[in-house]
Amino acid sequence: MVVGGYRPGGRAGHSFLMAQRLAIIGGDAGGMSAAASARRRDPDLDIVAFERGAYTSYSACGIPYVVGGVVEDAGRLISRSPEQHRERGIDARTGAEVVAIDLAARELTVRSATGESREPFDQLVVATGAEPVLPDVPGADAIEPARTVDAAERLRAAIEGGGGCAVVIGAGYIGLEMAEAFAGSGLNVTMIDLAPQVMGTLDADMARHVQDAAEAQGIRVVLEAGVEEIETRDDGTPVCVRAGGESYPADHVVIGTGAAPAVAVARAAGLQLGDSGALRVDDHQRCPGHDGVYAAGDCAESHHRILDRAVNIQLGTHANKQGRIAGANATGADLRFPGVIGTAVSKICKWEVARTGIGEREAQKAGIAVVSAKIEDRTRAGYYPGSGPIWVKLVAEPGSGRLLGGQIVGVEGAAKRIDVLATAIWAGLAVDEFALLDLSYAPPFSGVYDPLLIAARATAKLA
Amino acid sequence: MVVGGYRPGGRAGHSFLMAQRLAIIGGDAGGMSAAASARRRDPDLDIVAFERGAYTSYSACGIPYVVGGVVEDAGRLISRSPEQHRERGIDARTGAEVVAIDLAARELTVRSATGESREPFDQLVVATGAEPVLPDVPGADAIEPARTVDAAERLRAAIEGGGGCAVVIGAGYIGLEMAEAFAGSGLNVTMIDLAPQVMGTLDADMARHVQDAAEAQGIRVVLEAGVEEIETRDDGTPVCVRAGGESYPADHVVIGTGAAPAVAVARAAGLQLGDSGALRVDDHQRCPGHDGVYAAGDCAESHHRILDRAVNIQLGTHANKQGRIAGANATGADLRFPGVIGTAVSKICKWEVARTGIGEREAQKAGIAVVSAKIEDRTRAGYYPGSGPIWVKLVAEPGSGRLLGGQIVGVEGAAKRIDVLATAIWAGLAVDEFALLDLSYAPPFSGVYDPLLIAARATAKLA
Repeated sequence: MVVGGYRPGGRAGHSFLMAQRLAIIGGDAGGMSAAASARRRDPDLDIVAFERGAYTSYSACGIPYVVGGVVEDAGRLISRSPEQHRERGIDARTGAEVVAIDLAARELTVRSATGESREPFDQLVVATGAEPVLPDVPGADAIEPARTVDAAERLRAAIEGGGGCAVVIGAGYIGLEMAEAFAGSGLNVTMIDLAPQVMGTLDADMARHVQDAAEAQGIRVVLEAGVEEIETRDDGTPVCVRAGGESYPADHVVIGTGAAPAVAVARAAGLQLGDSGALRVDDHQRCPGHDGVYAAGDCAESHHRILDRAVNIQLGTHANKQGRIAGANATGADLRFPGVIGTAVSKICKWEVARTGIGEREAQKAGIAVVSAKIEDRTRAGYYPGSGPIWVKLVAEPGSGRLLGGQIVGVEGAAKRIDVLATAIWAGLAVDEFALLDLSYAPPFSGVYDPLLIAARATAKLA
Repeated sequence: MVVGGYRPGGRAGHSFLMAQRLAIIGGDAGGMSAAASARRRDPDLDIVAFERGAYTSYSACGIPYVVGGVVEDAGRLISRSPEQHRERGIDARTGAEVVAIDLAARELTVRSATGESREPFDQLVVATGAEPVLPDVPGADAIEPARTVDAAERLRAAIEGGGGCAVVIGAGYIGLEMAEAFAGSGLNVTMIDLAPQVMGTLDADMARHVQDAAEAQGIRVVLEAGVEEIETRDDGTPVCVRAGGESYPADHVVIGTGAAPAVAVARAAGLQLGDSGALRVDDHQRCPGHDGVYAAGDCAESHHRILDRAVNIQLGTHANKQGRIAGANATGADLRFPGVIGTAVSKICKWEVARTGIGEREAQKAGIAVVSAKIEDRTRAGYYPGSGPIWVKLVAEPGSGRLLGGQIVGVEGAAKRIDVLATAIWAGLAVDEFALLDLSYAPPFSGVYDPLLIAARATAKLA
């Protein structure tokens, strides 16, 4: 008769009959998805989540909308508070920073206001997220990252009433969203980037439309300009940003130059990093070589199905899926994360902007030969009110015509079409087959040929 | 040295060195797409199109929007006039009705204001469209079908200024669009249908949301009521509609009880009809047994990829694709129409409504076992302005989980998501794989899990 035994990766001496303990580092999308999925599968499991910040489960993607006043109540970004997690049997602790992981002893060192404690675990999910990468220039560290609900509220309060100048460093989607938030609040906005284009996730021809829209909204776009200094007063408030030999007055500065996976503690513990700098995981979100240890979300790698290599893409949608899979697998499930294809969408000034798969520039970098076509069309039947421009660019494999990537810019209704391309890329459809798909048509929604079909046909002619 | 020869299906004695003649019956989507595609492929071909009406290439789908005043200039529904076709080298003749096809002699008999003529052809495309099916009750033939640009303008003029009562017979998507047009113009609207639900292309649970929206807009919906008589004055104007034993006052009556493929002339000539009552075609739009004769659009059958049988679905999107393929194949191409999966979208009162593949009821009728799940979610992040309800219902094959159908009802941004489902169904994806697709996420566009992913997960649990 078996009365006990060891779970793989469990603490020595812990039998099946004793409660196992799942510890989670990080209380946002990846971590709390893991907690929730583990809870659903195993009602008896002891689940503890350590979050160094003040909040759990909040939507960082919503921060620009709080700053811009589009979302008035920043509290609505929090989908679940620590109390709500605790009500569901998840011991969510905020203000609790994990400063060390002892994989051999299966213990965490946790620092909080009340001191340091050691916390045992059987299974571990690392979901430490990402942290902003600041430009290595004087003054950069005086700028508060706009990455928390509190910071967003402070920034909103500071700019309310309008007036003054703002400088946004970084012209990626977060920089653009923040620049729009400032411009919409009546500030004089300059956006600065080292790159020759905004929105580096798009090809230059598509990014041009985005830049046009930002400029039409009064945002001054300064490209190919390296930031040299953020000049601040003694109290840390900014005076101006010096970049590319010019000086730009700045009552407010936001840095949106990207974020790096937060892996210092995990790396110190001996968990492997991939080439992307994020934690290496297998397709079950397991950290190789360490039974019962999982990683999920912004701190982890994902397999890119088109590039066929590991990448680090920081998006809530991946974090949620990976967290759920990690939490399920930590409780005995056998779920596989199938990877990503780089789908993303944003609303930038008057345009919706989206991309999936690979673009021409990415293909070139990766040494993948592609054909590509770009079309301009209308989002609705020409005669139907609210019809506006949409540009669709597709990238396909020469010969086979297999769809490898898509980019869309256009008015309302344009961007969510990216999901159709993402599904087709995922399924391996070729552009000639795509061009004859039975997509929906009615005048309020598209012309008789959806713009995607027109783009597919244009691409098929070249493939 | 070859100096002549016969094209298959060409007129006897016509050599390659003489201009071939492509005749097209029908000047709307299917016919004019065929003409345009043939023109592109063969600059020397003699192309003639006979249209019995006054217009070519107009958007019948736009008619309810003209009636409702959403589109003010009915002329904008015409995408290309006969003159414009002629400028492109297509001899488009309006007011020219083909009353007989002689397949042996390869001649058409054409009746016009100037009398009857005989027109030879080498290749023929039959694109005669569909014609309304009227209820077989007294008075029905006095009601002018609202199927032409002229009729739409007359109806608009008649209701402008509001007031009065309208009765719409038929609660399908056209009936609903017309009812909304009337209600929006201030009329008192009753919609009557024999069926127990509106929008027979949806399952009853999804159709319920549509009925709710129609009723919220003040449209009285009378179901399971057979029309017995349309009472008219001597001048043909309506007085009331009697249905289900009640009498409904009616200053205006619209009949939207469907349309049947217009195949009388083609059938008389010996072209085969399928079980759907439409012209049988192979996957190259060829009419079996008659070289050089093609059919396309509302008068023709399409292969339904999920039901695996021929169906007749009257939609501009199919007509355009089939017409283009017919026209190309008539000039020597080898293009294949891959079939349809029943995708459709409409805007009905406050909802967007869409469907693809098969629903539960269709599955039952066809003897196909399915599992099905329905979810309610929001179109955008809950905290983002403009977020509203969306219902998604999926149907999948038990065991394999292969996605077979989807239905969507919701606010702006909901319905075009149907194309994602259509693509997944087309590609044969299973719901568990679908649930992990890399679909786009940003707060203005969806929650962190797109409603489609949530629906797929719910369905996967049952499959």
